[in-house]
Amino acid sequence: MPTVDILLPGFAIDTDQGYPAFCGVFLVRGADDTGRPRNILVDAAHVGRRPFLWDALAAHGLTADDIDTVVLTHAHWDHVQNIDLFPAATLVLHADERRYAHAPHANDWATPAWTGLLLEQLRVREVVDGEEIVPGVAVIALPGHSPGSIGVTVATAAGTATITGDALHFAYVARTRRNPLVFWDADAATRSIERVLAVSDVIYPGHDRPFRLTADGGIDYLADFALTLTGLRPDTEGLTFADDSARPVWVMPGTGEQRARYDKNADVIRRRISNVPRVVGPGRPESGAGSR
Amino acid sequence: MPTVDILLPGFAIDTDQGYPAFCGVFLVRGADDTGRPRNILVDAAHVGRRPFLWDALAAHGLTADDIDTVVLTHAHWDHVQNIDLFPAATLVLHADERRYAHAPHANDWATPAWTGLLLEQLRVREVVDGEEIVPGVAVIALPGHSPGSIGVTVATAAGTATITGDALHFAYVARTRRNPLVFWDADAATRSIERVLAVSDVIYPGHDRPFRLTADGGIDYLADFALTLTGLRPDTEGLTFADDSARPVWVMPGTGEQRARYDKNADVIRRRISNVPRVVGPGRPESGAGSR
Repeated sequence: MPTVDILLPGFAIDTDQGYPAFCGVFLVRGADDTGRPRNILVDAAHVGRRPFLWDALAAHGLTADDIDTVVLTHAHWDHVQNIDLFPAATLVLHADERRYAHAPHANDWATPAWTGLLLEQLRVREVVDGEEIVPGVAVIALPGHSPGSIGVTVATAAGTATITGDALHFAYVARTRRNPLVFWDADAATRSIERVLAVSDVIYPGHDRPFRLTADGGIDYLADFALTLTGLRPDTEGLTFADDSARPVWVMPGTGEQRARYDKNADVIRRRISNVPRVVGPGRPESGAGSR
Repeated sequence: MPTVDILLPGFAIDTDQGYPAFCGVFLVRGADDTGRPRNILVDAAHVGRRPFLWDALAAHGLTADDIDTVVLTHAHWDHVQNIDLFPAATLVLHADERRYAHAPHANDWATPAWTGLLLEQLRVREVVDGEEIVPGVAVIALPGHSPGSIGVTVATAAGTATITGDALHFAYVARTRRNPLVFWDADAATRSIERVLAVSDVIYPGHDRPFRLTADGGIDYLADFALTLTGLRPDTEGLTFADDSARPVWVMPGTGEQRARYDKNADVIRRRISNVPRVVGPGRPESGAGSR
């Protein structure tokens, strides 16, 4: 049966000076229709985790060349930036997400205007809800956080595991059922959370540890928290710690006009997709190229 | 006289799971030859600081449209990603840095292969050592960390202030005189550190607070440390704090071949520069578009 491994764990940490934005990066292993083993990466993280991603692949006996498929749950900066490490892979993302990334809203700080240039560096396969990647590994459409957010459902020995991306950032969202960061449609985002809960035995959130819900709705984490901070001590003068139990819900100003903008820009988007030069090619980092 | 303000402070913090990579972002204000006031941004930070940059500009009574010039000390991911917020500005960077960014080394994890696509979204002005941006504000070449690292010297009322980028990441480097993270040339990097020390009364490092050196070579910080962490407590299980007093020096495998690669790729690079489509245009975020 297919398996899910955590290559880079997701973290629900923030600062008042910027977002570390450490999303989960996952390795899904399965076999295609002919029985050939396939290595599927789900999300790629941002550049600040690039050496860590190299190391994590190596720890699983893999190099970037062994990844057949890179699935993007969505095109936000902290999930997409390392896709250029996999020039031979097929990039799988939702058609709506691909198009949106070529003409994002000016208020959408998580999708810079240059995002589309990055996406087109790989061969793209557009997917919609229900499509199979390999047997037992399928796409589930989870729009709301972004136009084409998707999850990946994996039929594992432990039941259905769903990699949610930021359709469900944090375990606590399974209780509030409100996406804390909406760039597209808040109501759709809530329906997507409910869909995840309906189909999943185990949930791999975008920025938190995997968990199950207990019979009484509690959160049962399936991995320990582990993080080392350098350059800080608990008693560093000027360092404070804030409670995150009341993380506010933020809806991007302008979400009401997103659909109309998206439709209006269809021609511009088609032209942009066809005009992106390919600058990413093979070239594997040497062993020890990481900076740690 | 020209002035320097910190828009976003630089931080010397790291984790064992990824780099927060919060560089300093600076506002230099001066006047051009005709006396017209000019607003110069030095470095732009990565996407995880985008809403914070909007807020910092607003706190100085500015919007992105008020920035005439964006100087990049170098093209690493954590310094360049928000340049698309300033489509009307001139992008100032060293000629060597621009070219390198269009064909970076495979081991150079800080310069993804798609970096050149991003740089060409603005009108580029290539500069070399000694060029004036406005009277009292000049470029100082500081290669070594990257091929075309530059600093900005500002003739302020408090003497010569040098914004160093990652030619000098942290204050302690003024003592060790070794760049902790070398992607181009370690010896050149040391000469660049010595040059900064020779010309500067006040130093604004890439990832640390501004400082002066005292008569006996000590570090006199000119700003307080202030940071709030969310989603963590000092006693969070699994959280540890590591000493940073012995940050190791890392030199990228392959630096010895960097110059030859760069020269060999000259034609490819010229072609790439001329082929980048412009996808970034005007579009100002609404007030409140930040997510905090």
